[in-house]
Parts: sequence; C-alpha cells; structure tokens
Amino acid sequence: MYRTHNCGELRTSEVGQEVTLSGWVQTIRDKGFIMWIDVRDRYGITQIMLSEETSTPQLMETARTLGREFVIKVTGEVIERSSKSDKIPTGDIEIKVNTLDVLNASKVPPFTIGEETDGGDDLRMKYRFLDLRRSSVQRNIIFRSQLAIATRQYLASNDFIEVETPVLIKSTPEGARDFVVPSRMNGGQFYALPQSPQTFKQLLMVSGFDKYFQIVKCFRDEDLRADRQPEFTQIDCEMSFVTQEQILNTFEGLTKHLFKTTMNVELGDFPRMQYDDAMQQYGSDKPDLRFGMPFTELNDLAKGHGFSVFDNAELIVGICVKGEAANFSNKALKKLEEWMKRPQIGAKGLVNVKFNEDDSVKSSVGKFYDEAQLKAWGEKAGAEAGDMLLILSGETDKTRKQLSELRLELGRRLELIKPGDFKPLWVVDFPLLEWDEESERFHAMHHPFTSPKKEEIPNMLNGDHQTMKNLKADAYDLVINGSEIGGGSIRIHDRALQSKNFELLGFTPEEAEAQFGFLLGAFEYGAPPHGGIAFGFDRLCAVLNGSSSIRDFIAFPKNNQGRDVMIDAPAPISEEQLEELSIGVVMPEEV
Amino acid sequence: MYRTHNCGELRTSEVGQEVTLSGWVQTIRDKGFIMWIDVRDRYGITQIMLSEETSTPQLMETARTLGREFVIKVTGEVIERSSKSDKIPTGDIEIKVNTLDVLNASKVPPFTIGEETDGGDDLRMKYRFLDLRRSSVQRNIIFRSQLAIATRQYLASNDFIEVETPVLIKSTPEGARDFVVPSRMNGGQFYALPQSPQTFKQLLMVSGFDKYFQIVKCFRDEDLRADRQPEFTQIDCEMSFVTQEQILNTFEGLTKHLFKTTMNVELGDFPRMQYDDAMQQYGSDKPDLRFGMPFTELNDLAKGHGFSVFDNAELIVGICVKGEAANFSNKALKKLEEWMKRPQIGAKGLVNVKFNEDDSVKSSVGKFYDEAQLKAWGEKAGAEAGDMLLILSGETDKTRKQLSELRLELGRRLELIKPGDFKPLWVVDFPLLEWDEESERFHAMHHPFTSPKKEEIPNMLNGDHQTMKNLKADAYDLVINGSEIGGGSIRIHDRALQSKNFELLGFTPEEAEAQFGFLLGAFEYGAPPHGGIAFGFDRLCAVLNGSSSIRDFIAFPKNNQGRDVMIDAPAPISEEQLEELSIGVVMPEEV
Repeated sequence: MYRTHNCGELRTSEVGQEVTLSGWVQTIRDKGFIMWIDVRDRYGITQIMLSEETSTPQLMETARTLGREFVIKVTGEVIERSSKSDKIPTGDIEIKVNTLDVLNASKVPPFTIGEETDGGDDLRMKYRFLDLRRSSVQRNIIFRSQLAIATRQYLASNDFIEVETPVLIKSTPEGARDFVVPSRMNGGQFYALPQSPQTFKQLLMVSGFDKYFQIVKCFRDEDLRADRQPEFTQIDCEMSFVTQEQILNTFEGLTKHLFKTTMNVELGDFPRMQYDDAMQQYGSDKPDLRFGMPFTELNDLAKGHGFSVFDNAELIVGICVKGEAANFSNKALKKLEEWMKRPQIGAKGLVNVKFNEDDSVKSSVGKFYDEAQLKAWGEKAGAEAGDMLLILSGETDKTRKQLSELRLELGRRLELIKPGDFKPLWVVDFPLLEWDEESERFHAMHHPFTSPKKEEIPNMLNGDHQTMKNLKADAYDLVINGSEIGGGSIRIHDRALQSKNFELLGFTPEEAEAQFGFLLGAFEYGAPPHGGIAFGFDRLCAVLNGSSSIRDFIAFPKNNQGRDVMIDAPAPISEEQLEELSIGVVMPEEV
Repeated sequence: MYRTHNCGELRTSEVGQEVTLSGWVQTIRDKGFIMWIDVRDRYGITQIMLSEETSTPQLMETARTLGREFVIKVTGEVIERSSKSDKIPTGDIEIKVNTLDVLNASKVPPFTIGEETDGGDDLRMKYRFLDLRRSSVQRNIIFRSQLAIATRQYLASNDFIEVETPVLIKSTPEGARDFVVPSRMNGGQFYALPQSPQTFKQLLMVSGFDKYFQIVKCFRDEDLRADRQPEFTQIDCEMSFVTQEQILNTFEGLTKHLFKTTMNVELGDFPRMQYDDAMQQYGSDKPDLRFGMPFTELNDLAKGHGFSVFDNAELIVGICVKGEAANFSNKALKKLEEWMKRPQIGAKGLVNVKFNEDDSVKSSVGKFYDEAQLKAWGEKAGAEAGDMLLILSGETDKTRKQLSELRLELGRRLELIKPGDFKPLWVVDFPLLEWDEESERFHAMHHPFTSPKKEEIPNMLNGDHQTMKNLKADAYDLVINGSEIGGGSIRIHDRALQSKNFELLGFTPEEAEAQFGFLLGAFEYGAPPHGGIAFGFDRLCAVLNGSSSIRDFIAFPKNNQGRDVMIDAPAPISEEQLEELSIGVVMPEEV
C-alpha cells in the first residue's frame, strides 16, 4: 500500500489519523532541529514535518539524503499546523512523520519544476516528461481530457454515435500532402494516413448511421509553421437529413455546452456573418469581434481629387481608431507605417486623417483634400473628435488583408481585448470554388465534397467561368476570437453533381474514379442528404484558455521540423526493415 | 426540414398529427388500389400508406417509381392501423401520405439489406457501406460506441485522465514488426506507428499523471490470421503508487461496470489462478471456465507397467468426460483420435478408459493395466460410472497444449457451453522470461518493461540461467470465456533493473540506449512505482456479444491480406510522392 490519501485532500477533519502519502519532494526546509518537506502529487501538496524531538536520528538522517524530485512514501499522524497557510487547500495541517521510504532518487532536474520555469523551449521538449510535471502544463493536459469528456457527453446525449474510421487508408493527391505507409504484404503499394475521415464519415451517412462523431487523430505532411503539428486532433461530426441551419444550431449548442462545462462561461447566441460581409468589413474570413474597428470603404468619396494613388486604386478602405487610443505621435505613426511596409504585410503606405478635439482636421494627404472632404470620410467611418482614420489603398483582396493585419495589431497594441472575453460567430455562405491564377484551375474553397447552395445547382451544372467563380456553397466556419475553431458544409450526395465538381477541380473522369470511385459508387445506392463539421480540438483547447499555442495542449508535441526531440524520431531504420517493405532510401543528389 | 420524427418513435399517442419522415425504402407492397411501404432509418421502421381513395394519381405514380433502398421524404397524417403488428414498436400506426419526395434513387443492392443477408464475405466487404445498413451489423457498431462511453464513464469517475499519445513515433525492432512512415522533412528517416503507447504511458507516470487511460488505435505489421487486424484498438491504462492487487481490483471493477451497463449482466468476483496452475490444470494461459474438465496428471499411477509409450513420456495427463456425454461409439472415438492426430494438433494417439454403468472398465490400453489400476486413475480424475477418461502423453508443454485443444473441442461438440454465460478470471504470476531454443535467447513473456516480483529482484540481478528461467513477474491477464481480454503488469521503475532486463533480452547497452534511452533517462528523475493494463477493445466487443469475430465490430475492417477492398488500399503512389519522400520501390528479384 503506497498511500491512504493523495497529497491534496487532507484537512483538519483528519487530524489525529495515521495516514500514508506518496509523492515527489517539492521543497525541503531544514532548520536543523526541525525539517519541513512539501510532498507533491497531481492532486496537490502536503507538508510533512520531522523534528529531533519527535523523530529518530535514523529518520532525520534519511530525510537529509532527499533532494528535489525524489519519490518518497511517508506514514505519520495528521496534526494541525501552528502556522497555517491559506495558499494551499491542505494548509491547515501537516504530517508528523513516523516512517519515510525513498521509493526512487532523482538527479537534479535540468530546469525548475514549478508553475513557472527557467527552462528554455528546447530543453523542456527534450525533457518533456519533467516539463509535464509542472502544474501549469499538467493543468492544460487535464483540461484537454475534461474537454473531450464534455464533448462526448453532449454528442452522445444527442444520439451521436462514435465510430472509429481506419487510419491506414489510401493516398489522394488532392489537398495537402499525405503521410504514407509502405505495405509489406503488398510490395510497392502504400497506405496513407488520413488528413480527415471525410469520405468515411460520408459513407457512414450512406450506411444510415444518421449522426456520427469521432475525436480522431488526423495527419498532414506540411511544412510546419509555428503553430501546426503533423498529427492533430479533430472533433469530426456528420449528420443526415439536416439543413445547414440544424447543423449550426447543433454545434452552437455543443460549443455553449463546452464553455459552460469546462469554463463556467455562458455564451449568448452566435451572430452569423456572410463570407462576403466578413471580407468587406474585416478583411478576413475569421474576424476577431472582441473589438470593433470595422472597415469603411472610401472609393466614392476619395477618388477623382487628383491623388493618383487613390485614383488608381481598386479599393480605398480605412479603419477608425477611437478617442484616447488615437493619440499617436508622428513618430509612432511613422513606425506603424514602417511595420505595415514590411514584406510580411507589404503595404505601400499608410494614410492618416486626424480629427482634432478643436474640430480641425489634419491628414497626410491634406494637400489633395479639403477639410469638408476629409470630414465626409470621417462621417462615413463614424469618426468623432479625437479619433483618427487609417487608410490603405490598392488591389481589393490584398488591401483588405493588409488592413486586417493593421486592425489586429492595433487591437493588441491598444489593448482593446478584454481577457476572458469570448466572441464566437458563424461565417456562412463561403464561395464553392477559388480560382488559382498560377495553376489556372479551380480549387475547392472547403473541400471537393462540399455542396453548392441548392439554388446554385443549375448554375453549377451549366454555368460559364464567371458563374463558377461566383457559386456560393452551404459551407460555414465557426470563429472564436479570430481563430477558426471549426468548419463544415452540406455535402453533395448526388453522383452527377459530385462528378461535375471533380471535373471543375481538374480531375479527369478516370482520376476521379481511381481515387473516389467508392464514394461515387456509394452515391448510387441511396445516399441521404447530409452535412457536417470538424472542430480543431487542439485549437479549441487553446482558445478556451486564451492561449495562442496549441503545443501547450499536446502531451508530446513535435517541433517545427516535425521531430520528437525527446524520443529522437524520426530515425533511420534497418536495411532488413527496408528490404521487407520493398523500399530503399534514395537521397536527392548533392549539387 | 427533412423530418419531424424518426422512423422508430411514432405511437398511437401521435395519431392525428401531421408528421414528416425521411428514410430508406425497405419493402413495398402494392395491392393496386392501395400501397404500403416500410420506411427505415437507424431508429426503426414505420409503415406508410397510399391509396387510390386518399392519394392523387400523381402521388401513386411517384410511389410506383420507388425501389428498394430509395431515399424518400414523406409528409402525412399518423393514423391507427386497422391490422396492427406487434413485431415492431411502431406497429400500431401508419402514415397516410400527403406528399412524397424522392431524395435519392438507388440501384438494386448487390445483396439483401436485412438482419440476415445472402451476400458473401467478399461482396459485403466491397460494399461495406451497404453491409453497414443491415441492422445486425449496425447494432454491433452502435454497441461498440456504447461500450466506449461506458469505459470512459467508469475511468473518468475514478480520476483517470485521458491523454493522447503520439501516433508518429520511433521504430523499435523488439517485438512484432512496425509499420513505418517515411519523413519528407528528414529524408532517409522514418517514423513508426505505435504497437502500443507503452513507453509514453510510463513517461506520463514519471510526469505524475497518476492515473492515465486512452482508447487508442495501435498497429502491428503481422501476417494476419483470421482474427487479426493491422490496426486495432486498445483501452490502455496506467496507474502510479499501486500494487498489483489494486490494479486488478480497479479493472475488475471496470469489467463488471461494462457488463452491467451494456448487457445488464452482473458478474461475481473474478477468481484468480496462477499461471503455473492454469497450465497444469487446463494446458492454457487462458482457460475457458464455462465448463469443467480439468486435467488429471497420471504419471504416478500409469508409469512402470510395461506400456512403453507412457513409460517414456514426460507427462501422462487426461480429462474426464462426464455421464451421457461420454457415450462415444468406437467409430466416434476413432474419428476423435484422427482429429487429434492432424498436423495442426499433432497428437500421437489418444488413450481412453471407459467406466461402465455395470462397474466394469474398458480401455484401449487394457492389456497393460488391470481394472484396479484403471479404477485408480478414474478415482484420481473424479470419474464416476458412465464417465470416460481421455488421456494423452508425451513432452509436457506439447501434451498440455494438445489436451487443451481436445478439451475445448469437446466443450463445443458436447455443447457444454451455455449461451450468455460469462466466466472471467485473472491469470497471475506469469514467468518474466521465456527461453527461445531456436535463437538461444530470452524473450519477454509480457514485454521488456515488466517487473519481476519484488522478492525476485535479487535473483534477477545475480541469478544463473536456470534462476532466470524461473523468475516470476507481477504480470496478469484478464481472461473471459477462454479469450485474453486484457493483460498488464507492474513495470520496472529503476534504471539499473531495466538495464539488466534489456541485457537479459540480448540488447547491447548501446542498443538499449539508442532505442529506449529516453525511458532509461526518465527513470533517473524520480520515476514512481507504477503498473497498468491494456484491454483489446475489439475483442472485448466480440466476447461481450458471444461472437468470435472482431471484424464484426469494426466499421471498416481489412481483409487477411491487410487490404481494404472497398477503397482499394494499399495502392501505388506517384513517382513525385516517392521522390519527395527520398524513397524508391525496390521489388525483390523474381527467381
């Protein structure tokens, strides 16, 4: 028996009892005649006490061999502390030790095991098993577990069935790169790891499962940005015989349930915003609504007054910085313009119009516009005395993107975001297709299985190029605080329409058949109308906790090179393994 | 809106209401002036009715275009049936149809979609999405979902935390073959898919997570027997600061909870049997206790009487067939002996001793033993008048295995197994190591991380070869009805002991460090005593349902060649993909 209680549960009600605890040595305070040791486990910290008065010399001696992170087992009597602590729930008691066993020793850890730590990222990843002992990290992993429980609770109570779909599937060159797995039994052939269970969940709808979900690992062999992982987790869902509206309501319900259960946050109803409006008003399909600053388009007011930059621009668009926050110095404005001109953003310049408290107006383009004209801009943008307009111009899509970056940066710099504030919204009516100038072909905006809106189907089957560009889909994203948390769509369930979509996406009929023949075939045997959604589970964990890093919520994450530095993977494998798998390593020639 | 109700919920209480249902056409009965159609979804079947009296000609015409498995939406009034059916819960009502929409047509399915089917295995796997429509198959998949929910419910309420461990890890040649994944970003290097999260869950214990679980996909690239899958699911668990006894009690509790929740079966306390006793009494480490027939060893009674086969045998052992069941004809006995002599079993012969009702004894070895001697055998085996002893002899391990096969076969043939009977037991005290004559080395009986019993540790650190063979481990299996459902052990948590174990298993110190250095390193930073268990989730589903096939409980299983014949995977990948991954296909030379 290693323990009668854990290190977080003893209170004065247990005073007088003999108890046994096991855990890690957190701190040792040795006053010579008396020693206090904090013993830690996942549940908390309990103080134990040894003294020359009450303990044998051997016991004191053993205690003095201990170091940080030693694993010990102690038996003793719960006593009331003379000097209580209100910092920990066990602060009213301590254990007067009778026996002490060292269960395992520990070398001095390479960084401090505490809420905060002095360990750098690389060191913490190499010793992730120690980093995971830190209460701040452990809390994140436990939170993730609770979020999964709450998710399953809600979905199961709404008649969803969790079905495991296969991990060893077939490679489909569409979309991101697949990880592949050579088959030993079928030499020269490969499985692929799923980027999502998309086709399988659609087949489950064809099978009549009606409401499916799965919390499931997915895989994408992409060049990793700071916050991407080669393996990631989705809450993957699909429903039959539903409208888009019913899907949104179901998963709005899930989201509210998760916030309530795990954070005790009550979310109101989620606003819905059309994709076109989101782009026009915030320059983004995932607007952060924790602060305002919507875009104001100024083409009608600012063109034709001799300022050639504006005159030649496809779009002139600004945001209004309100009140106190707008008191930028000229130097600060200059620096902001420089920040916008960095290649990452690529703005050509930043125009400002300052509406002074004395009702005068000052602008970096003052020589092209008179005060009345500038005031008309301000009026359109809702600027009041003390506010400032910041204006960009150029090609529409690029300019919106740049202004969106500026808006977000100002939100951060001006601290417009309240901690603990959550602003969810649904972005709806995404385009079906996206024209790629470079490859001169359409890409699926969501994925190739997304249905156009019902009223668009005739256009899709018979339309010209421009019609195709304008097709709208029953596709939607759930956005919280500027992060895309989930996305989904109503799917195509008709073979002819699906074939047409593959054709638009540049598949030959043979390619479509080779890759997705099983799905096209399934559509011929009574496929029901269906649709669904997938949530990024790692991201959801992070957003709920106001964190920007998904890595903090993954027990054993990989670094930006896709390496697990703790276990040192990937790694070479033996010649015998390669031979059995009918493959060889072919390194590209050195130049 | 596709439906106001599902196809399983309408009762007479809804009579008079207008409802909308969507589902699949199960059967059509067309009497000319009146038509009945059974509409099916996951929740049940509802009968709809159209008649020349109440329906428009157009409606009748549309209804006559329908075929099996068409997807339809109907609106109509709930009416009480004149001739009720008690075969289905909705049998008291039907829907008088007002509108009928064909949501999707269906080709004639290649096999019958029903509880039973005429489809062969290959056809059903190719059209798995149709096979999954069959209520018997759908029930299995839904059962699996419920079993997972009940598992999580129990473990979460017992303070276990579900932690996701990585799928892309490092290949370790020990044990079964790994599936590997070439890394594009680290050319010439490979990830491996986990055969189990063993080392990661141990690291989580080092991290202080205390109680971990995960329902998790695992992967093994083995030659597939009938009932193996390359990807399979485990309930994987680990606990810190626990004794073997506490682990057994915790997971006995889980198992009882699962039987109660999903099957309403109350299991009594599980007996515990030592590995040595299981082998001696049943010739198996997973005895099926749904019937008796334990082994009786006869060396002391049967040797030294001139029957050279017995005299030269290492072991003489028999089972007693009781009463009526023992009335084998000579012909049947002859056939049974032939069955035992097949190469799959390899017995040399089968000796019988028949204890007749008239108190006489008849035996195939009657010329070597007198009646008193044979009666002594019977007495030892508990044989009564009318019973029969069946006896094998030879090398101990082989003979036990053969007699175990005979025992199980008799259990089946004599129908000694009651349907719905469950006989769980813990098999404990497994050997730590297994000597492999061929490779002249030890293998880990459980896995390399299993701890010897505490009192065996000094023997392990200093023992000779024979001592090593006899080491007992804190390892245990949960067996139900002759199937191994779960297995686990107390783990080593000491670096020196783990290194010694690797040495015994034939690792050089360098190999141990290269493959498991991270774990050995972790043991130096305060690893707590810990242990755990893993349940085969697919097998558990099957055993609970009295099924012998795990494939019935997997939505999209692979065949014996590791192929998914529905999606046609594995498959060749493109030259570009191979090149990006720095690998090439190297087929073995044709001979």
